[in-house]
Amino acid sequence: MSEFDVDLFVIGAGSGGTRAARISAGHGASVAIAEEDRIGGTCVIRGCVPKKLFVYASRFADEFEDAAGFGWKLGKPEFDWPTLRDAVANEVGRLSGLYRKGLEAALVQIHEERAVIEDAHTVRLQRSGKPVRARHILVATGGYPAFDPPIPGGEYGISSNEVFHLPELPRRMLVVGGGYIALEFASLFARLGVVVTVLHRGDNVLRGFDEDVRTRLREALAHAGIALRLGCTVDRIELLPDGTRRAHCAKGEPIDADVILVATGRRPNTAGLGLETAGVKLGPVGQVMVDENSASSVPSIHAVGDVTNRINLTPVAIREGHAFADSTFGNKPWTTDHSIVASAVFTTPEIGTVGLTEQQAVAAGYELRVFETGFRPMKATISGRHERIYMKLVVDAKTDRMLGVHILGHDAGEIIQAVAIAVTMGATKADFDRTIALHPSAAEELVTMRTARKSAL
Amino acid sequence: MSEFDVDLFVIGAGSGGTRAARISAGHGASVAIAEEDRIGGTCVIRGCVPKKLFVYASRFADEFEDAAGFGWKLGKPEFDWPTLRDAVANEVGRLSGLYRKGLEAALVQIHEERAVIEDAHTVRLQRSGKPVRARHILVATGGYPAFDPPIPGGEYGISSNEVFHLPELPRRMLVVGGGYIALEFASLFARLGVVVTVLHRGDNVLRGFDEDVRTRLREALAHAGIALRLGCTVDRIELLPDGTRRAHCAKGEPIDADVILVATGRRPNTAGLGLETAGVKLGPVGQVMVDENSASSVPSIHAVGDVTNRINLTPVAIREGHAFADSTFGNKPWTTDHSIVASAVFTTPEIGTVGLTEQQAVAAGYELRVFETGFRPMKATISGRHERIYMKLVVDAKTDRMLGVHILGHDAGEIIQAVAIAVTMGATKADFDRTIALHPSAAEELVTMRTARKSAL
Repeated sequence: MSEFDVDLFVIGAGSGGTRAARISAGHGASVAIAEEDRIGGTCVIRGCVPKKLFVYASRFADEFEDAAGFGWKLGKPEFDWPTLRDAVANEVGRLSGLYRKGLEAALVQIHEERAVIEDAHTVRLQRSGKPVRARHILVATGGYPAFDPPIPGGEYGISSNEVFHLPELPRRMLVVGGGYIALEFASLFARLGVVVTVLHRGDNVLRGFDEDVRTRLREALAHAGIALRLGCTVDRIELLPDGTRRAHCAKGEPIDADVILVATGRRPNTAGLGLETAGVKLGPVGQVMVDENSASSVPSIHAVGDVTNRINLTPVAIREGHAFADSTFGNKPWTTDHSIVASAVFTTPEIGTVGLTEQQAVAAGYELRVFETGFRPMKATISGRHERIYMKLVVDAKTDRMLGVHILGHDAGEIIQAVAIAVTMGATKADFDRTIALHPSAAEELVTMRTARKSAL
Repeated sequence: MSEFDVDLFVIGAGSGGTRAARISAGHGASVAIAEEDRIGGTCVIRGCVPKKLFVYASRFADEFEDAAGFGWKLGKPEFDWPTLRDAVANEVGRLSGLYRKGLEAALVQIHEERAVIEDAHTVRLQRSGKPVRARHILVATGGYPAFDPPIPGGEYGISSNEVFHLPELPRRMLVVGGGYIALEFASLFARLGVVVTVLHRGDNVLRGFDEDVRTRLREALAHAGIALRLGCTVDRIELLPDGTRRAHCAKGEPIDADVILVATGRRPNTAGLGLETAGVKLGPVGQVMVDENSASSVPSIHAVGDVTNRINLTPVAIREGHAFADSTFGNKPWTTDHSIVASAVFTTPEIGTVGLTEQQAVAAGYELRVFETGFRPMKATISGRHERIYMKLVVDAKTDRMLGVHILGHDAGEIIQAVAIAVTMGATKADFDRTIALHPSAAEELVTMRTARKSAL
């Protein structure tokens, strides 16, 4: 009999853990997985999926407005929050069930309880108290929304975990934070009829994104009626007798809201997991420190996904989990290349981005040719909507290599996914140029930009 | 004094002719252009542009339906045809004006009348009777909708030229034809509330497209309420006393409609142009026969765009016109590569396609690995819409080269434009595979398909 109960114990049944478990089992490993919350993880349960469904809901508001110019007359649309909330919750439940079925079909043992690491090869299930000896342990516990820095009265705020389950649609919402999660919710709730204020300590939104995209998105959000209070922090949140949440700010008037959504960042979910006891080295924000094989400082313990705080995106976690499984149990070692990862921000307008921003490229010492275009989308010529699509190509002047592509506007996410194939291949500007346009489309502008500017940075 | 009045005389101010005129003038040539209709050509005046604006209008109908599942309540939407028609006409007028301004800014002489070729270097303006001697003549007269074969009573039908100006929205429309133009109008008018029948002599729609895409589009059109009469021709059209158009068919009941749109094909616009007199060789459907430099059999006469019946798409005409101008006047000879051209069909669902269909690849002798996926778009999980997105990758089994990509569904046009960059670069399936997904998107399916089938053809 083996000294181990299982070949692999996975802690956390999110995107990365589930993929690793299923692929490992497919390679013949005996696998157990523990999940203390719902199977599916952040993406399915309280992230990408319900968020994007909310975004779809919100964009109907624009469609209703736009339709008039095209000859449509409709009465004043009314929005019913519980219908959306419950429909999304149902869909999330369905998807969680599919994740479970996938695990079951792969014969992965599922433990729906918290699991904590005791040593390099032992995990203890917290409800049953049962220890499980595992040849390999994979930590895939993801992240959680952190109120960072802590706000006095923060208990009167909610995080993105709770925002999907609000009992009613607030009349006024304050969103604290300027990252993509904060802005996605601000953008969508504003379209659902909520009076939204965004309060952010930085002087612009979306740190880390291309500056021209940041500025244009900020303008678009303001144009959509979102009040932006930048360069400002919340000192404390006060609960007024009528239930109003009052945010006292470092400068300016206090802000009253029915819901305060704090979206100031996420942290790796490692607290109380026994990692330090087992000798696993953690990083400054609590992340599991791993090498390119997702191995921690303890050889039998690996980690994938947001808990490692590399690139905190679902497909990256999936790929890391897949690579771990193939490498460990499939005799097919490979690693995840994190160098080119496209991503989207599902604000309205949305952002699609791949590769370096102009600022990053300059900082990296590249001499640049920058191509950019801003244009009114065809649909807006008839709808009359105040809207521009913006695209920027960041090109290495020496090699003609496409270092980065940035899009703000309709379908930016779908377009950038396909652009990412070319950029992953090492596309040059000449490759873009010789691609024949598809007309009429927005994406054709990507292949028809001819006049460069030098980087002004 | 030169023996020529101008260096270049362009006949036809559409996409190809306008581009050639402007670029040639930019290279220092003296340029004249003649247009007997409105400046802008098929694309701007009676093709891509107004068509796509109509498509946008039509898709609101789906949005209104889809919104309910997301919690929106709205009264029964009403559609007013004149509002749309006139708004689109205004936009077309604006764009035509921009084309004119572009020509004027380039100092191109504009003659708004028909021009006919007299000899290798002479064009005669038909209204003024004035001859113009030109060093080079560029024929860019495009194409026209042909009733082919002719239908007795065809005068009671209309072509796509007239469909943009209907005095009122018909209650019943018969669309004759099964190509992309026929289907785009069928799809959009059905959504605007018209009872639409498509009658087509072939046994499936969209000849030349991938078979799996053809079949799925046909099913989607049927599901949208469009009656399809395939394998059938119209013998004659009869005008009934109440204004109804009755199409008598080769088999089955006659079809009554208020408008019969005949979209059975387009022909190069060369009749009466004097080309044969000047010695220009024409092809079987009347197209100007040209070499890869767009030169006709007469050295001083070139032709670009639909009149050459190569690939009849706006961006191709533009590129051919640009190449002609650079080669002839810019001392920068280049040719248009027609081998990889992405295109879209703006039906709902729409099609995006680049490269070879599975059938074409098999016929060309390739051994194939074919990847395909069909899935319900995320939005449809909540809207309840009966809808699938379909994607197919046609891969050369020997070289792993991506020979063709075919998409049916939302945003197919935008996505395929970006995919075309990679395909133009010679992408392999491995290039697609190593591209990291962007979640949640539809396009991510392009880079996550892992299980091939051999071609069953």
